[in-house]
Amino acid sequence: MNNKISKSEKTRNFIIESMAEVFNKRGYAGTSMADAQAITGLSRGCIYGNFENKEIMALAVFEYNLAKLCTVIHNRIIKAKTFEAKLMVYARVYRTLAEDNFLLGGSPILNTATEADDTNGLLKERVATASLKWQTCMAGFVEEGIKAGEFREDTNAAQIAFTILSLIEGALILTRINGDPSRMDQVMTSVAQMLSNIGRIEKTIIN
Amino acid sequence: MNNKISKSEKTRNFIIESMAEVFNKRGYAGTSMADAQAITGLSRGCIYGNFENKEIMALAVFEYNLAKLCTVIHNRIIKAKTFEAKLMVYARVYRTLAEDNFLLGGSPILNTATEADDTNGLLKERVATASLKWQTCMAGFVEEGIKAGEFREDTNAAQIAFTILSLIEGALILTRINGDPSRMDQVMTSVAQMLSNIGRIEKTIIN
Repeated sequence: MNNKISKSEKTRNFIIESMAEVFNKRGYAGTSMADAQAITGLSRGCIYGNFENKEIMALAVFEYNLAKLCTVIHNRIIKAKTFEAKLMVYARVYRTLAEDNFLLGGSPILNTATEADDTNGLLKERVATASLKWQTCMAGFVEEGIKAGEFREDTNAAQIAFTILSLIEGALILTRINGDPSRMDQVMTSVAQMLSNIGRIEKTIIN
Repeated sequence: MNNKISKSEKTRNFIIESMAEVFNKRGYAGTSMADAQAITGLSRGCIYGNFENKEIMALAVFEYNLAKLCTVIHNRIIKAKTFEAKLMVYARVYRTLAEDNFLLGGSPILNTATEADDTNGLLKERVATASLKWQTCMAGFVEEGIKAGEFREDTNAAQIAFTILSLIEGALILTRINGDPSRMDQVMTSVAQMLSNIGRIEKTIIN
């Protein structure tokens, strides 16, 4: 019995892994259930047996990409010693995504966001929840940083979180369009400067 | 003869205007030439007579959306009195886009970017050129601001330009996903703070 479940899960995972790159490349609207058959070499019955429709499959692929990316981010965050360093992890991981979008499954939010907005209700809802969760998490680091005396008390945690996420998602789009991942370094500098500006240290800028 | 050209241009423009919202909503991959027939009510021959294929039509729609947005931005920029104010125009116009994405045809870069990356070479090239042109334009304002004594001399103009564009494109994605355009205000604050930080004034931050 266990063995049977395991085999069925293996097939499901195989479909998800095979389709992840296709969804990232062609987007939701540009991918069909027939593509899934062609790419996996599995029968129509097998594909539909695992995923009722394309929307359900897209959701599973999104979860798979998100989990992969979150694991990488989480593993780096627990090693970071300051809250500034924890927040910089997001920018650094996105720098890696810019270099090779498929290494970590790309940015699941970016890959599904534009289309999900208008064509796919379930996926839109899931992307929205994930994006808010990330923002809550980042805002939490800012708040803990304030408590720990690392950031200034008048820092708006939600604003900083939303700004970092907007900045790295937007920069990832632009670097992908222009084929120049090194521009991501400029955005990392901007995130670092922003975090330095909310730093609780005495500063004098004269120019 | 003139009249005939004018009628043919009218038809072409009618197709572009009708398709602009569809491309924005469904994306490039999710829109077909058959959709163009259904939406415009024109014959297959008429559609193909104006646009050889979907890629050519998508390009025309992109140019249409871009021109509309650029006109709005340009008209506000010439009225802005400082370089800081000129740079803020981009953020303010994107704030309007977040409120109503179809008011100005949406962000042409965002609407085509994710897909254009992998599925449409011509469109990708055009989006890349437009995005670089915007960045060059913004970087120019930063450089003029430095010369005018408005911004600090050690300001990296390209970095500021790339950061502003990344920030507003990224924020537009996230506000569309989460259905909360008011979050765009946080990003406007961040852009304003960044511009204030490169401002050529003596600052002392003690907390």
